Amino acid sequence: MAKTHIDKSYEAELGALREQLLEMGGLVEAAIAGSVRAVVERDAVLADLVIRKDKTVNRMEVDIDGACRRILALRQPAASDLRFITTALKIVTDLERMGDLAVNIARRAVDLAQAPALQPLHDLGRLAALSEAALAKALDAFVTADPVKAEEVLEADDHLDALYLKIFNHLLTTMMEDPRTIRRATSLMFSAKHLERFGDHATNLAEMVIFMVRGTDVRHSKNKA
Amino acid sequence: MAKTHIDKSYEAELGALREQLLEMGGLVEAAIAGSVRAVVERDAVLADLVIRKDKTVNRMEVDIDGACRRILALRQPAASDLRFITTALKIVTDLERMGDLAVNIARRAVDLAQAPALQPLHDLGRLAALSEAALAKALDAFVTADPVKAEEVLEADDHLDALYLKIFNHLLTTMMEDPRTIRRATSLMFSAKHLERFGDHATNLAEMVIFMVRGTDVRHSKNKA
Repeated sequence: MAKTHIDKSYEAELGALREQLLEMGGLVEAAIAGSVRAVVERDAVLADLVIRKDKTVNRMEVDIDGACRRILALRQPAASDLRFITTALKIVTDLERMGDLAVNIARRAVDLAQAPALQPLHDLGRLAALSEAALAKALDAFVTADPVKAEEVLEADDHLDALYLKIFNHLLTTMMEDPRTIRRATSLMFSAKHLERFGDHATNLAEMVIFMVRGTDVRHSKNKA
Repeated sequence: MAKTHIDKSYEAELGALREQLLEMGGLVEAAIAGSVRAVVERDAVLADLVIRKDKTVNRMEVDIDGACRRILALRQPAASDLRFITTALKIVTDLERMGDLAVNIARRAVDLAQAPALQPLHDLGRLAALSEAALAKALDAFVTADPVKAEEVLEADDHLDALYLKIFNHLLTTMMEDPRTIRRATSLMFSAKHLERFGDHATNLAEMVIFMVRGTDVRHSKNKA
């Protein structure tokens, strides 16, 4: 009986960890969506909200990290549980940095709201949508241990990179045609770059999930620039 | 007798892990130094060498990751050893991404070598030197478990950020004064940004070392933009 009790509580601990990671992922998704909406709608108040909410993401990183270490120390997990915990330890670091990227974009939004609007804001919104979808799918793949879903994230990253390049080139042309736009265009360029990196993090998560499930390392199969 | 034998071999495993991490760190240091020298000296051949050598860094990530998981599974480390292994699992991810940043800069170097030089290349060299020093010190702090050295890395990051901002503003002015420089200036801007992020990774490593040794979480005490 005692054994069953321990196992149940161990399962509950793993389940709680899964929940916490999903909750943190949800916060990061909301943050990236909010930061880009702040750029597109020129909303400095929303940008400020995104910046302040990052504290919660940071606190969750510390909590989840602690939970992983506690499980490793007290439960000495083996096989697939061990792979799950060591993957969670890495994923939480990626999530925290994705939150930082949202903060960086929100800071740009504050500046951009003070100057006339510059295009292509529409494409930036699309890039944000692709990035959010990539994170949502990668986390879903992680908690359901589904490598096929993870592979879809890897495939979608090409669209994300292509859209980033389109925005980048558009902004380069804008700057060349009208040097008065240089400061704003640079800000938008970096915002787009942050979104592209956000997508790269989602790709990292997906690669980790494939490794976790199949034991095959697909990292470095594709060079991320 | 058998027990002693096992402990000795366990110590040897931890020692080997430390050595591997230092070796990987050395490769990444050489990569960032080479990539920036390729930009400054307009050396596309050197840039290409940096890009090709990244394969070794990637392979080491997979190896070290595997070693960490094996030690966790077979040795069930506790207390400070557990903190060391879980930190190593995270550090190796940072090192691999620092290698990717060097590759990104090397790719820019290939493009930049085909157009007339643009300043301030001197400052870019200084920024690279600060970034390399930060990585070397952070790794040293990790293998010697020295939180004081780790704190020095955190303090030095302010200089790195200030120099990055100086370069960024200089390039912004250059573009505004002469729009023909926009493409090259943008490339240099992104190279500088990669170096600044390289420094951020070194800061992440240093924060992890402080946590590993003191159990105090100093992450998020400073917001990284």
